Amino acid sequence: MAPSAVEVLPESDTSTFTIPDRLTIQSVAKRRAASGKLIAGAAAAADVHSFKGRTQHVHKANAKRWDHRLTEEAKARTGSSLKEAAKYLGQPGLISLGGGLPSSEYFPLDEIKFKVPALGHFSAKDIHEHGVVLTAGKHDMAEDKSLFDIATALQYGQGHGAAQLLRWIIEHTEIVHNPTYQDWSCTMTIGSTSAFDITLRMFTKPGNWILSEEFTFPAMVESAAPMGVKVAAVGMDEHGMRAESLDEVLSSWDEKVRGGPKPFLVYTVPTGQNPTGATQTLERRKAIYAVAQKHDLYIVEDEPYYFLQMQPYTGPNAPDVPPPASHEEFLKSLVPSYLSLDTDGRVMRMDSFSKVIAPGGRVGWITASEQICERYSKHADLATQGPSGLSQLMLFKLLDEHWGHAGYLDWLIHIRMEYTARRNVILEACETYLPGDLISWAPPMAGMFHWLKVEYRKHPHYGKKTAIEIEEEIFHKLMEHGTLLMKGSWFRAEQELAVETMFLRATYAAVPSEQIQEAVRRLGAAIRDSFGDATAANGVL
Amino acid sequence: MAPSAVEVLPESDTSTFTIPDRLTIQSVAKRRAASGKLIAGAAAAADVHSFKGRTQHVHKANAKRWDHRLTEEAKARTGSSLKEAAKYLGQPGLISLGGGLPSSEYFPLDEIKFKVPALGHFSAKDIHEHGVVLTAGKHDMAEDKSLFDIATALQYGQGHGAAQLLRWIIEHTEIVHNPTYQDWSCTMTIGSTSAFDITLRMFTKPGNWILSEEFTFPAMVESAAPMGVKVAAVGMDEHGMRAESLDEVLSSWDEKVRGGPKPFLVYTVPTGQNPTGATQTLERRKAIYAVAQKHDLYIVEDEPYYFLQMQPYTGPNAPDVPPPASHEEFLKSLVPSYLSLDTDGRVMRMDSFSKVIAPGGRVGWITASEQICERYSKHADLATQGPSGLSQLMLFKLLDEHWGHAGYLDWLIHIRMEYTARRNVILEACETYLPGDLISWAPPMAGMFHWLKVEYRKHPHYGKKTAIEIEEEIFHKLMEHGTLLMKGSWFRAEQELAVETMFLRATYAAVPSEQIQEAVRRLGAAIRDSFGDATAANGVL
Repeated sequence: MAPSAVEVLPESDTSTFTIPDRLTIQSVAKRRAASGKLIAGAAAAADVHSFKGRTQHVHKANAKRWDHRLTEEAKARTGSSLKEAAKYLGQPGLISLGGGLPSSEYFPLDEIKFKVPALGHFSAKDIHEHGVVLTAGKHDMAEDKSLFDIATALQYGQGHGAAQLLRWIIEHTEIVHNPTYQDWSCTMTIGSTSAFDITLRMFTKPGNWILSEEFTFPAMVESAAPMGVKVAAVGMDEHGMRAESLDEVLSSWDEKVRGGPKPFLVYTVPTGQNPTGATQTLERRKAIYAVAQKHDLYIVEDEPYYFLQMQPYTGPNAPDVPPPASHEEFLKSLVPSYLSLDTDGRVMRMDSFSKVIAPGGRVGWITASEQICERYSKHADLATQGPSGLSQLMLFKLLDEHWGHAGYLDWLIHIRMEYTARRNVILEACETYLPGDLISWAPPMAGMFHWLKVEYRKHPHYGKKTAIEIEEEIFHKLMEHGTLLMKGSWFRAEQELAVETMFLRATYAAVPSEQIQEAVRRLGAAIRDSFGDATAANGVL
Repeated sequence: MAPSAVEVLPESDTSTFTIPDRLTIQSVAKRRAASGKLIAGAAAAADVHSFKGRTQHVHKANAKRWDHRLTEEAKARTGSSLKEAAKYLGQPGLISLGGGLPSSEYFPLDEIKFKVPALGHFSAKDIHEHGVVLTAGKHDMAEDKSLFDIATALQYGQGHGAAQLLRWIIEHTEIVHNPTYQDWSCTMTIGSTSAFDITLRMFTKPGNWILSEEFTFPAMVESAAPMGVKVAAVGMDEHGMRAESLDEVLSSWDEKVRGGPKPFLVYTVPTGQNPTGATQTLERRKAIYAVAQKHDLYIVEDEPYYFLQMQPYTGPNAPDVPPPASHEEFLKSLVPSYLSLDTDGRVMRMDSFSKVIAPGGRVGWITASEQICERYSKHADLATQGPSGLSQLMLFKLLDEHWGHAGYLDWLIHIRMEYTARRNVILEACETYLPGDLISWAPPMAGMFHWLKVEYRKHPHYGKKTAIEIEEEIFHKLMEHGTLLMKGSWFRAEQELAVETMFLRATYAAVPSEQIQEAVRRLGAAIRDSFGDATAANGVL
């Protein structure tokens, strides 16, 4: 760590010390030691600055302020008046009859044991047979057995989540993304669905538009619509959102035609996008970020699939690419996030454990400038509050006490290889069973989805039925053949626009390999059947 | 159960069968058997009607509709388009590449064990030494070991929560409250803070007012304020909100003076109100309900302290009242809820596990008409989603599989007796240590709070300083004497109104008895000190 004298230097004077390297897994322990033991009892506020390291970021510029973009609701949020009393609690010898916290004496839970994967033994069978049992007691903190316990996790908490887990999250974020401005921060969410709901209320009001990929996550559109917020579609190609299209939509924005002011909030899923599976290249991200700077946009990068980036696809007969040989190699293999490119503090990154641990824990986090994180957590204090204490306790035990940062990256590499294998199965099945003149695709590089383009203009009903009617007909033909895929039209950001392409979305995340293969075989038969191919009736190629 | 033929009778024809008794603990098993085995896999929609019993409520009238009170946002919420695909999933032999659910194969959790109180052994020491260990496996449902498991609890869920726990909640609600209209329902929340946030968005818009006790939960006011919603104070007495005051506020409502239309949403904590500890009598509740009918109000009853109703207070030298001798006697001892009186379906009851199990699980529920529950859960689907699966799994294991309804009532009786003992300690300490000419109180009948009225007009600075300044002075005097209570003014619903009373809020929930006694002794000394009583300096009576 740099000497503490550095801390009092004016921000502009960075001449007297060298720029620190980014946080590595190895240096986490040193930083923690320098901060002293983490002591965070019931409903403790987290000292985010100590988690970030007091000197690691001082050479960086601060984020832009977003007062001109925040809603009245977001600006009006104040702290709880009752928390005023909390500042007196440190007085020695004080007895508090103040805070209305129930005594943990009455929590009917004394101990929890979680059986989880041992380091390096990650298969479901391994977990079951050779799993490690992690134990959390009720008063482990008082008994000096752990930094977190049941009495604290099950007590009221803060909107930003428990300090114990938040520290790990901040370190992980820094190891992976190393944000380029000084005053970045993280605050926990109860999942990205809720985070986006809150984000909309922080940035938009009825009559506003936001921007998104032309094919997008329907729940996002459905979150915005009841608030009177519409989604303007930005064109895509195989690398996801197109920067030129984003610029074009904004440059040609006509308030009268659209019935709302020029939008400034961009929602994007840069990696393994749902539904298209597209992953934006680094160049694409830089180009979009430049458009965001030009139009003063605020970018929400929703990244549930970031760690579902897979090995390169080599085709059916080529040897597999060996897995990353080190954590460094693994981290380098990931496309840099918007967060890592964000010199201005104009990005809110939404992270989620749903695809890499499990969805049901309802724990995620955002990373953004302190201003935005502070407004977010103030909102959460009086809405969602923090995530479930049981979920946080389980994650802390697993990620901090058991695996640590290195073990978690090992787990992510395991997940990467598993998804790579699944992705390869569906691609090989598609190559085997699908009629290439009717269906085409790009191999997905990340995520859970395979996006199949259907040449509906070759359909016998083309010209007689609308595209939507033909899609419906094909969907039912798939059902007849015993396979279910999602209609591409369900994912259109702007339902009003003319339909000029047709897609089906398949996932390779949910069912085992043999079923993926059989489902694709049926898909091929169904498509041939629907398009009137003579070979289709008996499902044989 | 009534014969199934009853089910097809027109709703108005109730002549051919007798009105069924209310649900008892004993009849839950029969109802469950009649409904068949509960099968609810990943993200399953709950069949609430079967949980309620198909015939138990058909003789009752349906709830009033609330279309005229719901916001555009609440009315505009639609189901997710992707769920359209779910209806096909029942097709035999179908392979779905549709839903984007991650495989539970990758959930790094194989087994959880919770150590909880054995029936009838509820003390913290008992739990630690003689607790029962409940086990949840990953695939217990497939292996026919349980109705709920890790693979399901940790998968994506529904906004209303998991069917497994929701069934228990609905039965419990019926056992305790037996709603009087037919189409009541329950849906889970992630806690009442979130439930109230969502309720505000369902019923109010900027510029609106809502109604509440003149002293109220500050977080409620602070939730409403950023949405542009103000709280109009309704007068109180020792039995809480006054019906006459509620009528008066509404009858004399002046839109021009208030700057907003006449309110229709009442927020009330009827039992052990925070901060006053007041509990509305049955008569009071009926009177307020009549005012609600007169003005077409919608009542939100927030009842975290409902099961913290205590034994009658007999005074320092009288023998204790023996605990309830049976579950029936216990249930009869509880003041009837608004829900139980609600013939119109104009009540949303908010229940919470925070004070009777633990706050950190972030699980609660609302009970209201189907229309309101349906709108609420649609909102939750795209905002909070359901509660944490780990929390739900723990509660299901404890409440359904282990304790059952009877065991849970035993636990609630245990909590009742514990709080009674704590309440008695603070009352006796107050009688011992506080100067009766300066501080007065009514013994709380429920909840966690003791509300002390301060005769600030006797303070030497009365007339020289404002009431708020004198309160601040007293607060700091308390701190000097090493005891912290909450200022009454922090709880005022309308900060603009003139201050004509002064209170302090003490809780007896958090610290052990000896500390309660010592804190009250210090309080007495501090008050005497502040008011200039010569006996104060050495803290002796």
